[in-house]
Amino acid sequence: MTLHDDSPSTSAGPFAPDHDFALALDAHDELAPFRHHFVFAEPDLIYLDGNSLGRLPKAAIQRARHAIEEEWGRDLIRSWNRGWWDAPLRVGDAIGELIGAAPGQVIVSDTTSINLYKLALAALSLRPERKHILTDTLNFPSDAYILQGIANLLSPSPLHGQSLGSDPGYTVQYLGSDDGITPNLDQLTTAITDQTALVTLSHVVFKSGYLYDMRAITELAHRKGALVLWDLSHSVGVIPMALDDWQVDFAIGCTYKYLNGGPGSPAFLYVNRRLQDWVTSPIWGWWGQRAPFDFELDYLPAPGIRRFLVGTQPILSLLTLEAALEPIRQAGIERIRRKAICLTEYAAYLTEHLLTPFGFSLASPRDPARRGAHISLRHPEAYRITRALIEEMRLIPDFRAPDNIRLGFAPLYVSFSDVWQAFDRIRTVMLKKRYQAYPHARLTVT
Amino acid sequence: MTLHDDSPSTSAGPFAPDHDFALALDAHDELAPFRHHFVFAEPDLIYLDGNSLGRLPKAAIQRARHAIEEEWGRDLIRSWNRGWWDAPLRVGDAIGELIGAAPGQVIVSDTTSINLYKLALAALSLRPERKHILTDTLNFPSDAYILQGIANLLSPSPLHGQSLGSDPGYTVQYLGSDDGITPNLDQLTTAITDQTALVTLSHVVFKSGYLYDMRAITELAHRKGALVLWDLSHSVGVIPMALDDWQVDFAIGCTYKYLNGGPGSPAFLYVNRRLQDWVTSPIWGWWGQRAPFDFELDYLPAPGIRRFLVGTQPILSLLTLEAALEPIRQAGIERIRRKAICLTEYAAYLTEHLLTPFGFSLASPRDPARRGAHISLRHPEAYRITRALIEEMRLIPDFRAPDNIRLGFAPLYVSFSDVWQAFDRIRTVMLKKRYQAYPHARLTVT
Repeated sequence: MTLHDDSPSTSAGPFAPDHDFALALDAHDELAPFRHHFVFAEPDLIYLDGNSLGRLPKAAIQRARHAIEEEWGRDLIRSWNRGWWDAPLRVGDAIGELIGAAPGQVIVSDTTSINLYKLALAALSLRPERKHILTDTLNFPSDAYILQGIANLLSPSPLHGQSLGSDPGYTVQYLGSDDGITPNLDQLTTAITDQTALVTLSHVVFKSGYLYDMRAITELAHRKGALVLWDLSHSVGVIPMALDDWQVDFAIGCTYKYLNGGPGSPAFLYVNRRLQDWVTSPIWGWWGQRAPFDFELDYLPAPGIRRFLVGTQPILSLLTLEAALEPIRQAGIERIRRKAICLTEYAAYLTEHLLTPFGFSLASPRDPARRGAHISLRHPEAYRITRALIEEMRLIPDFRAPDNIRLGFAPLYVSFSDVWQAFDRIRTVMLKKRYQAYPHARLTVT
Repeated sequence: MTLHDDSPSTSAGPFAPDHDFALALDAHDELAPFRHHFVFAEPDLIYLDGNSLGRLPKAAIQRARHAIEEEWGRDLIRSWNRGWWDAPLRVGDAIGELIGAAPGQVIVSDTTSINLYKLALAALSLRPERKHILTDTLNFPSDAYILQGIANLLSPSPLHGQSLGSDPGYTVQYLGSDDGITPNLDQLTTAITDQTALVTLSHVVFKSGYLYDMRAITELAHRKGALVLWDLSHSVGVIPMALDDWQVDFAIGCTYKYLNGGPGSPAFLYVNRRLQDWVTSPIWGWWGQRAPFDFELDYLPAPGIRRFLVGTQPILSLLTLEAALEPIRQAGIERIRRKAICLTEYAAYLTEHLLTPFGFSLASPRDPARRGAHISLRHPEAYRITRALIEEMRLIPDFRAPDNIRLGFAPLYVSFSDVWQAFDRIRTVMLKKRYQAYPHARLTVT
């Protein structure tokens, strides 16, 4: 099931990608039953922000209740020996299944930013003679900040002032983008030099949804002697990948987007097994100690991936995440990916045919092979349109400054009917100019 | 209400600190009603490990349910503007009330270890010409590991090998202890030198329960030009303190012990306002950025305490913690402290009068003014005795290698009757030598 720009007709007559068409797509959607795994407290609300905060899986409610009332309330400290202590590795292995990582290479812990901090420093330790970190201008600013902080910390006098760019020791370099959608890949080959220690990119770009060819770029970096660290925050759970097969060195990712782990559920990190004995975390944590309950005063790193643990993880959030993974595993990443392509193809089609007249443009790759599970619409009034959609139209997208309306299509619970209705509601806002009632003032949080 | 060794009698006859005596103490305990704020799923279980994992407050159940089903399930991403975004500072301020910190100086985030990492590096940045970090051998090994990792990272070639002690740039120094209970305070004055950048200690020592004089030692360190960083993990919620008044520089702490935040609930950190504009976190996180939703690629630290935030916190655990703080605020730290002194005095008395004949010794300060809310009993068979108590006697203490049985007396829900019964059960294990049925093998997790 694929929509092409050049397929505007069916045997029944002129092609009309309307609500009936959407309902027909839903009727043939093999993942449609998975919608029932999730809570829909407001059935008329169309939620296209699952790439920012995934919907609540019903199983998570039960799991959290059990964790609180039985494991904490009744079993108390004994629960550490009944599934809590191993949870960061156990849930890590479950995520590993989704990203092509054999057991023992993924842990769930801390935040995406802290995991990037740990692994980027670990990566630099393997290439001490190289002083450049390469990323791109499309990456999460949050990732750029971490890299800048590392460059600052590793400068010859990091503790004096800590001002950005005060020292040329380590530098963060940015691959550019001409259109804000696709990175300038033609510059990548020359951008990676014999001074590049680490190439770190987001697998799927958070604004445009551009999907990097992880395998090809990993190979390219390795040919230049650089290591790679992929941020999977916008791809884990919707894009098939094979980190082990592709020889990826390091990866990190978020669990509250397509993994539906709940607000601020702990992040994950991956260290390829071939590197684990050669690197340590810069943060020497007791959970990463070789024998934490010996209470020895000197740190010795644990073997394997465990050394990247630091302190005690938020167990309630971690176990809720574990329950949330189950529907994803049942559905299978390949099926999820197929539906994501259909959803975003449909959305791209509707953008071009319904919204272009209102001044919208697609700010995402047109080729589904180079696109994740979300798209962005660019419009000068993006902020006010977003406000009107949320306040009046029962549609939740998100706004990304300065002019993007981002629409996320989480395949497990977004239907084709949702997509149709979303675009119909956007069109209504534009036809009636409803956005003009809203101030230009910026959101504090979107 | 205080017990002294020299008060062995009452007007009714010879003093018998037995169950009736304990019940009489309970009858006069003004905090006794607070026990009903907590879940007691197994009424016959005596839980003296609240200093490791606090009991489940009933309010936390409701709060977690609301956070999951209403805030996440129904309101979805909108909840970020309805109390989630501000939670790290809001809950931080609530903890600030418990430690004598005015608003705007405490945040809840990450783990105790990561917060130590952030603040110790921040502290070192203020004393760049000094290369020594002073702690003690009684401190959490977890804190020592973090400090060792920092010393390694700041060595001239941190990325080569990352092996402990390979470089003399920064050193971690340890104040000793002759008895494993009390630090050698007489050596402190000379241990802090003009090379000491930072003095970092646990306010209450995790094994012995020794309570440092925070005010005096902060003053001493300041006189020597050093900064202080206190780990409050074993004192917050049970010991009154006045961080602002005492001019403390930095502090960190855990929230799942006496604050009852639940397993792995996020930790907190304090930075005195007078220092906030002079330091930054080594981990440049987007939550600490000046304008995170501008999505600017360059990091600029936010004003104030917010710059020590990194990434998105586990909201479920954070809001559960918030609910757990309420009974503590209602009870008041001064009343909690008074009861803690009575509980540990009673326990110390019972140790000496009931358990000394079986080879136990008190491994905690005898002076209640220098003791937190837990005590340790030393016994060569501590491990096996702990096993027998847990498996057969419905008593949960915890074991700390090599020979400590640690008993925590969380004043909000531990009664004097609990204390009596606990010692009676320990005596039973010893009388019947029940511990001999257990292997010497070590616990994986205690």
